[in-house]
Amino acid sequence: MRLSQSFIKTLRAAPKDETARNGAYLVRAGYVHKELAGVYDYLPLGLRVLEKIKAIIREELNKIGSQEVLLSSLQNPELWEKTGRFSDAQVDIWFKTEVTGGGVLGLAPTHEEPITNLMRTYISSYKDLPLSVYQIQTKFRNEKRAKSGILRGREFIMKDMYSFHATEADLDAYYEKVEAAYARIYERLGLTETYECFASGGIFSKYSHEYQTFLPVGEDTVYYNSDRSVVLNEEVLQDDVLSDLGVKRDDLSTTTAAEVGNIFKLKFKYSEPLGLQFGDENNQLRTVYMGCYGIGVSRVMGVIAEKYADDKGLNWPEAVAPYKYYLVGIGEKGTHYAEELYAAHEDAILYDDRNVRPGEKFADAELMGIPYRVIVSDKTLADDSVEVVSRATGESKMVKLTDFTID
Amino acid sequence: MRLSQSFIKTLRAAPKDETARNGAYLVRAGYVHKELAGVYDYLPLGLRVLEKIKAIIREELNKIGSQEVLLSSLQNPELWEKTGRFSDAQVDIWFKTEVTGGGVLGLAPTHEEPITNLMRTYISSYKDLPLSVYQIQTKFRNEKRAKSGILRGREFIMKDMYSFHATEADLDAYYEKVEAAYARIYERLGLTETYECFASGGIFSKYSHEYQTFLPVGEDTVYYNSDRSVVLNEEVLQDDVLSDLGVKRDDLSTTTAAEVGNIFKLKFKYSEPLGLQFGDENNQLRTVYMGCYGIGVSRVMGVIAEKYADDKGLNWPEAVAPYKYYLVGIGEKGTHYAEELYAAHEDAILYDDRNVRPGEKFADAELMGIPYRVIVSDKTLADDSVEVVSRATGESKMVKLTDFTID
Repeated sequence: MRLSQSFIKTLRAAPKDETARNGAYLVRAGYVHKELAGVYDYLPLGLRVLEKIKAIIREELNKIGSQEVLLSSLQNPELWEKTGRFSDAQVDIWFKTEVTGGGVLGLAPTHEEPITNLMRTYISSYKDLPLSVYQIQTKFRNEKRAKSGILRGREFIMKDMYSFHATEADLDAYYEKVEAAYARIYERLGLTETYECFASGGIFSKYSHEYQTFLPVGEDTVYYNSDRSVVLNEEVLQDDVLSDLGVKRDDLSTTTAAEVGNIFKLKFKYSEPLGLQFGDENNQLRTVYMGCYGIGVSRVMGVIAEKYADDKGLNWPEAVAPYKYYLVGIGEKGTHYAEELYAAHEDAILYDDRNVRPGEKFADAELMGIPYRVIVSDKTLADDSVEVVSRATGESKMVKLTDFTID
Repeated sequence: MRLSQSFIKTLRAAPKDETARNGAYLVRAGYVHKELAGVYDYLPLGLRVLEKIKAIIREELNKIGSQEVLLSSLQNPELWEKTGRFSDAQVDIWFKTEVTGGGVLGLAPTHEEPITNLMRTYISSYKDLPLSVYQIQTKFRNEKRAKSGILRGREFIMKDMYSFHATEADLDAYYEKVEAAYARIYERLGLTETYECFASGGIFSKYSHEYQTFLPVGEDTVYYNSDRSVVLNEEVLQDDVLSDLGVKRDDLSTTTAAEVGNIFKLKFKYSEPLGLQFGDENNQLRTVYMGCYGIGVSRVMGVIAEKYADDKGLNWPEAVAPYKYYLVGIGEKGTHYAEELYAAHEDAILYDDRNVRPGEKFADAELMGIPYRVIVSDKTLADDSVEVVSRATGESKMVKLTDFTID
């Protein structure tokens, strides 16, 4: 992208009510625009980060055989009444809206009910099982406190996956595949210090699993042992759980963390009330086992922003950076060379071709958090080189033109 | 996609309330699932069609320098009150929802107000102009009548673009660029018989332009001359308009049509009440000229479905078909060859590897509307050939293996 052609510019200040660091930097660096508490627009750079996160998630879920769909936001209360979840007493974060001509619809905060109902059309026999579907879609939650930038949205982007099985053993086997896929996803996203964490399983299973990224501003409190092979949410810090996991309270440390995903063996929780059954080998009707698996896509973007930001601004891991390189040409020859470099690699380069001082460009490069700043000047060219500065380490090195490649 | 691995199957019947042909076929062929009137889920094949339509639109809009963003659905009433459009008397298709803690939010039926307001942050000088942004996003409209399948949704996917200019001449010049881009988009989508059509311009300009695809089930009535150089909506069939356009009433024919896009010179309609101004070369504050440009993405999918469907089912133009080829292997050698072909071209082929009769596969290929059915059997292989059947023409031909390529 040519910065002179983009409408984006960095801002001196974030909105006054933007108290979260991720939100403030994302606004100042031109990635998002705040509409309301917990409601953001994504500008070109922000959209590119979202798309990079989505692409990594898609690749890993496609590898474990999940099929992408896109369910509606508007929800029929009838479906949710079958599980009791349209009630505000049961689910207190519904946005509901009246329909012209009468009636009420909900805005989906999650999609267990509609996906279970949809599968009544497509699952009738054991031959249709197992199967797994996912979507990357906008969710709506009527949150009272939405003060954490894009970490907690009233409107946010989520990946939710649902799997369907004939037997509990098959659900267990797929659950392990998802655990492996999630580990790869967080690793590829650059989200180090992200751990699978024991959490409350509700009334249908003893535990569920959350994925928690250790983070000073995280809203959760977790406990962990020295090698972090056991991480648990404080909500399950009880004697019986510690005994199950074979750890002692005194051996655990504690920290704050941000939840970036969760996986859950639903078993019959939704398939039973919604009547999702299949005929087995003996033509006996049986209830389908289900699992569900979430990742907060826009939340992940916020957690990555929070985790790596420093006092100069954002600092994206390469895998999710909107562009890998921030290019600055200085002087006549430097600018000429920069133009050629940009023309050959438009998609990887954020090219600051604005008519402003180099110092202003360098400061913007740091605020925007682009991994490598590449400077081509008459001086570097005199040495047949470009200067490459790492945003993460601040390290600067001269690289010979013959050795320099854009990837 | 391997059909044996997909959860999709064709259905004998559509829901009883699904009276529109596009809706009925899209449901039966496994492209969509109906949640409610005007509310659909997109299944893997349907999502692929949407993504192909979006990709064509993106390419053409990027070429005319528009930048992609993603605005929120939840809307702050304060913004819309500035133009009077939060009032149900002014805009009668709002979905509104109460917020925990008090207040009301709207679900965006369109985005003129928030994009105009957003640009107050990014436009301050004539140097920031012109600029153009677009998004492909879910819109919500509380429609009384939503009985046209995915042609008229209460929740639907739309591309909306907004441009910003210092002068009317610049707006006019960009408007012409958009007209050229729209012509390319509809041509690439395979939407023949789509014409730019004069329609009412409201109170700010005499005309706006709609893009209308001639279609028996279209909701609009249009009038057109013999070479279709003049097409106009019946709402502007008046003497002064006919005189402006230099046509006579008697020379016009009439037909029904479906609106697949519209473009509009907004001028100051939103920038004035929302205070979007810029400083000109003399540091004088002036109001920004605006244009807006829509394409109904999911509606386009419905119109294409309606336009080309026949009594056997859907019939996609190649450019938007979820897969170009529907592959069937018959017999041991035929199946072996089909497997090899599929392995080499997974992304272009819908491979029907199910254990069902060839006749059932052929019927499903027709219902799903895949452009080319490719049959490899022991018999075709004895002739070193595959059989290729065109869905559009029904024409079957034997193609030598050495001449057959998947593209």
